[in-house]
Amino acid sequence: MNHLNSMEPGPRPVTPPGPDVSRRSGRAHKAILAATRELVAEVGYQRLTIEGIASAAGVGKQTIYRWWRSKAAILFDAVLDANSQEDGSVELPNTGDVEADLRLVLRESVAAMVDPDNDRLQRAITAEIQTDLAVAGELVRRLLRPQLDATQARIAAGIRDGQVDGSVDPGMVAELLFGPVFHRWLLRTGDLDDAFADGVLDLVLTGIRPR
Amino acid sequence: MNHLNSMEPGPRPVTPPGPDVSRRSGRAHKAILAATRELVAEVGYQRLTIEGIASAAGVGKQTIYRWWRSKAAILFDAVLDANSQEDGSVELPNTGDVEADLRLVLRESVAAMVDPDNDRLQRAITAEIQTDLAVAGELVRRLLRPQLDATQARIAAGIRDGQVDGSVDPGMVAELLFGPVFHRWLLRTGDLDDAFADGVLDLVLTGIRPR
Repeated sequence: MNHLNSMEPGPRPVTPPGPDVSRRSGRAHKAILAATRELVAEVGYQRLTIEGIASAAGVGKQTIYRWWRSKAAILFDAVLDANSQEDGSVELPNTGDVEADLRLVLRESVAAMVDPDNDRLQRAITAEIQTDLAVAGELVRRLLRPQLDATQARIAAGIRDGQVDGSVDPGMVAELLFGPVFHRWLLRTGDLDDAFADGVLDLVLTGIRPR
Repeated sequence: MNHLNSMEPGPRPVTPPGPDVSRRSGRAHKAILAATRELVAEVGYQRLTIEGIASAAGVGKQTIYRWWRSKAAILFDAVLDANSQEDGSVELPNTGDVEADLRLVLRESVAAMVDPDNDRLQRAITAEIQTDLAVAGELVRRLLRPQLDATQARIAAGIRDGQVDGSVDPGMVAELLFGPVFHRWLLRTGDLDDAFADGVLDLVLTGIRPR
């Protein structure tokens, strides 16, 4: 479970947390995040309200305010909760074939981005981070950076295996792969599908100089 | 002067437009767009109001409502007005050296994005287009697409000159160049400077396969 630690100290049960209390607490927390995701997909972020989330999650408004200080903070946790591993770690497959592994990851990213529910959720958070620098920093630190770092690590392994040129900066390659996909998704410049993901990867592999 | 034609029919003088009227009209139009850019940089988009723009531009609110239906529509014209040529066309330099020309263009894009005033303006419009699909479509059609098309044309010329491999899709290359720059700017994943622009270009030129 992800929680916006730096903005909010996290669950603070008012009674000592016996097993039942913390189990109920965990269920309520999950229900609130799930309700937030469903409501954003349904009505959009602008019409999302704390009251609406409380009602959909079957909890009182005070339960929400115990854990989050704002609509943006809940949204952010809802996005993280839907996109991260339980322990927050991200690891890319390593089948020994860097091209195949990166192709799979890029295609999976595209599939996740075009999923209609996820699309609305991600657009809401993207709009939010343009004005809220604290949320923007958290998003990068807790969601994007782990994904970029995992990709970077896979590319570094590709260098060790002799499948990627030793002179390239693995971190820059990670942004070269995800940047165009993000650009096309956010700005809707064209179709975002497997063909685009494959085209990006092929260009990054071979470059554009005459061969 | 750019105007959001598809959303709003444009200047509609209530009196027949003699030379003086249209000159005054043009000045007021320019003043409103300039005031919008200054106010967004100063107070942000969320606190921008039609009243504030009218006051800063020295016009009445009715003058603004004669030309634009919403705050988003003014913002959009203000962005276009600051970024486009008078006639809306965009053309990349062609010195005969595709690498040098693309390097210049990428560095100029980076410089424009990190300019503090422009940064706030662009972030406001980026947030806005996440929820307003009409504005998003106009932004792509009238601002991004011409830039991408001009880059694509320069790359196609590079293919004709034998400086770019004939098998690549020039449109995809354009997004491969601007995508990572946009990703880094929007998500603030790292330093956005000439070194990053150069690194992106170098990777796109040579690819990551072992050489």
